[in-house]
Amino acid sequence: MDYDSVMNLALERGFYFPSGGPYADAQAGFWEYGPNGVGLKARFVELWRRSLVRRAGMMEIDGSQVMPPSVFEASGHLAGFTDPVVQCTACSATYRADKLLEGDASLHEGSSPSEIDAAVAARGVSCPGCGGALGPSRRFNMMFGLGIGPGAEPAYLRPETCQSIFVDFPRIYKTMRGRLPLGIAQVGKSFRNEIAPRQSLLRLREFYQAEIEVFCNPNRLDDIKAFGEVAGTAIRLHDGSATREVTCERAVETGAIANRTVAYHVGLLAEFYERAGIDMKRTRFRRLSETEKAFYATTALDFEAEVSTGWLELVACNYRADYDLSGHAKRSGEKFEVMDGDEKVLPHVFEMSMGIDRSLYTILEHSLREDAENDRTVLSLRPHMAPVQVGVLSLVKKDGLAERTEEIYRSLREEHSAFLDHSGAIGRRYRRLDEAGAPLAVTVDHQTLEDGTVTLRRRDTMAQERVRVADLAGAIRAEVAFPAA
Amino acid sequence: MDYDSVMNLALERGFYFPSGGPYADAQAGFWEYGPNGVGLKARFVELWRRSLVRRAGMMEIDGSQVMPPSVFEASGHLAGFTDPVVQCTACSATYRADKLLEGDASLHEGSSPSEIDAAVAARGVSCPGCGGALGPSRRFNMMFGLGIGPGAEPAYLRPETCQSIFVDFPRIYKTMRGRLPLGIAQVGKSFRNEIAPRQSLLRLREFYQAEIEVFCNPNRLDDIKAFGEVAGTAIRLHDGSATREVTCERAVETGAIANRTVAYHVGLLAEFYERAGIDMKRTRFRRLSETEKAFYATTALDFEAEVSTGWLELVACNYRADYDLSGHAKRSGEKFEVMDGDEKVLPHVFEMSMGIDRSLYTILEHSLREDAENDRTVLSLRPHMAPVQVGVLSLVKKDGLAERTEEIYRSLREEHSAFLDHSGAIGRRYRRLDEAGAPLAVTVDHQTLEDGTVTLRRRDTMAQERVRVADLAGAIRAEVAFPAA
Repeated sequence: MDYDSVMNLALERGFYFPSGGPYADAQAGFWEYGPNGVGLKARFVELWRRSLVRRAGMMEIDGSQVMPPSVFEASGHLAGFTDPVVQCTACSATYRADKLLEGDASLHEGSSPSEIDAAVAARGVSCPGCGGALGPSRRFNMMFGLGIGPGAEPAYLRPETCQSIFVDFPRIYKTMRGRLPLGIAQVGKSFRNEIAPRQSLLRLREFYQAEIEVFCNPNRLDDIKAFGEVAGTAIRLHDGSATREVTCERAVETGAIANRTVAYHVGLLAEFYERAGIDMKRTRFRRLSETEKAFYATTALDFEAEVSTGWLELVACNYRADYDLSGHAKRSGEKFEVMDGDEKVLPHVFEMSMGIDRSLYTILEHSLREDAENDRTVLSLRPHMAPVQVGVLSLVKKDGLAERTEEIYRSLREEHSAFLDHSGAIGRRYRRLDEAGAPLAVTVDHQTLEDGTVTLRRRDTMAQERVRVADLAGAIRAEVAFPAA
Repeated sequence: MDYDSVMNLALERGFYFPSGGPYADAQAGFWEYGPNGVGLKARFVELWRRSLVRRAGMMEIDGSQVMPPSVFEASGHLAGFTDPVVQCTACSATYRADKLLEGDASLHEGSSPSEIDAAVAARGVSCPGCGGALGPSRRFNMMFGLGIGPGAEPAYLRPETCQSIFVDFPRIYKTMRGRLPLGIAQVGKSFRNEIAPRQSLLRLREFYQAEIEVFCNPNRLDDIKAFGEVAGTAIRLHDGSATREVTCERAVETGAIANRTVAYHVGLLAEFYERAGIDMKRTRFRRLSETEKAFYATTALDFEAEVSTGWLELVACNYRADYDLSGHAKRSGEKFEVMDGDEKVLPHVFEMSMGIDRSLYTILEHSLREDAENDRTVLSLRPHMAPVQVGVLSLVKKDGLAERTEEIYRSLREEHSAFLDHSGAIGRRYRRLDEAGAPLAVTVDHQTLEDGTVTLRRRDTMAQERVRVADLAGAIRAEVAFPAA
């Protein structure tokens, strides 16, 4: 299915929609999750907790979104988290200079304003909107600044969740009695003042991340007790030209992945996304080229999924060495070394930085299908991911069926996400549930009043069976249970 | 237990701690949740979803934290969400003028700067810090402003989550096929630029809210189908002088609560907090006086809990009439009326605005106790609220016990929040689990290797029994299951 079909589903079935309601001053790049989007996101985060955080014995924190300047001096964001922009001298439209000059071999990520101005002049680039002359370029910092208190002390909305993981690391390690390797995870909002947000959930100014920082002893990167759990797990590695499927064990043996610390976590990540309902045949771990990756990253893999708009980065997997902790140690004057047995080490960090919104988009696109034979659109979410787990319908409203239906709905709705629907033809109600991805539908009919059974319909097969009302909760629980590793 | 004991627990056992790590430019009013705080909050939110959102058939959304100026013009925040402040002319310290002048009968919430200046002069108030003269007062808006994009278009961090519920209401009602009364809920961060944040989670600049807006037909406020579920539920009503316990049904009959819409939701709220582990004998619904409540609120009840620092507002329950929807309709020119059967209505709103951080603090304070007899501190969280559900301990590490312990830990940790602990005397390890509120501890000993049983210890009674390893997951599941209504 294509982007527009997913967008249509999102708007019509309450997955997501633009923020700001009816107001014209609502800015681009801000979107809201409707009831079904909230449900899908909640299941996604719970699966992430089970399959990554708890499975690998990680710890999760939840830090402030507002952070002080020192943090971003140490991280390099204040100096370097910028896009080059140019403004049209005629119509005042602003553009990312690197996008206007895409493919220009004389430029790179750190090109100075004068280098960019030279390239603009050399190629005679003018305003794509009005054709006017472009003014001089400048670096635009993508962090949102804030003023705190009546004195407006400077602070920033975090552009990534991981910085609180780094600055809190010594405290967590000590109070929670950590051992290396120790993963610390965080899920929450981050903010980037993008020049050109676009494509709904694919490039947002306010977005959800789930980040994992694995603190490890650089001398013991192959010392992963549970590696056997993922040794046989297949991942698809892309080296710039070809993609090949390889097990995590083989990837380490051949040197395709540098060590077991990286391979173990990448293996867990692949298993997580498989459970989340992404078509793994349309994914790859793409090795970043030397010019793409950050200077401190010794290993840099982007986990990408193929969607209708192209390859989409879902997770950046970077071995960041001691870049973060030594930066904060230097800026703060505090010690970030910890004891690993008898050895004092400044831990290295392997990071998996996940974009939640893009992941949800990919799940929707990979799950949505037209079932022409049955004249319906089906969102084939894995049952454990579905925002609505069960629809509860009355065949007709009269003869006490509506009341009995509501009684059954009330008996299910605390434990399960249930949707009550009385109105319209039963076929149309099934179609709407199919589009929302509900794996099950319960229908109450006259036989229910006689023998205490209901119809249980399955979304994918459309098969119906009669089930005793007393057995319903158990049947739903079995259907939507999270799969174990 | 007192505030300092809770703070000590929070810092030592990873519940919460100040944000900003080692940096001196970290501002007051920003705190972070550690692993146990994250776990407690996740269980709290899940209980809220079950006991309020799903139980009452509400819909949940998740909107942007950044919103445009029009929203806050319509809501009144741009004009009125201000505190009066005065600055010392000598030392430049800034104070909330209303706090300096507390108890001054000549002043009220809307006093003008000149009225405040007159009161300062009349009472001869000087700087509490240095004794210097105070400058003229001004209104300080508590919203954080932001600049979006290269043109720095104005926007604000939301000071409450509910505004997106109001502006999104017509879309949700239509696409999700809503019926009045319809509750729409949201949990997320809000931001207020407080002059004097204090007492950790009790007054934050960045905080979690869980807000519920019930949209209802003002002509059918007693038409609540499920009212019978809470008719007999007791709530404690405080009228300014006395507190009396009364059932929800009786509260409506006597006119103490205006209608069944309010009483039903207030009853659900009381049942929710009881399940969350707050001591309900130390709570009250306090009726706000005419001078305290907002001009549009016809019913205003604060749900308060008694903690060591005094009575703490956890939830503001306000019947807001059509203030919100008519404000947005007027500002935007859009229609906010909906059809309720054959009747076209502009819905009224009953709001329950919950502070999550304060609620978690209250749960901790109400659960923490000294068990002098057994020389331990116990956090007696309800088992379904515990961030660590089970500790998994080896009696000793040798003879293969460490390996067997880790095997059992790995078999439990995806479904349950488990904490593996090998090191230190077993008694001390139990004590640490007691302080973190873990309801269960599993200990692996030599007998485990012989007969496949482990010791299962219960936190509150300290009773131990032997359980087969195969039965462990089921025993834990039963212990930590959420209670049903």
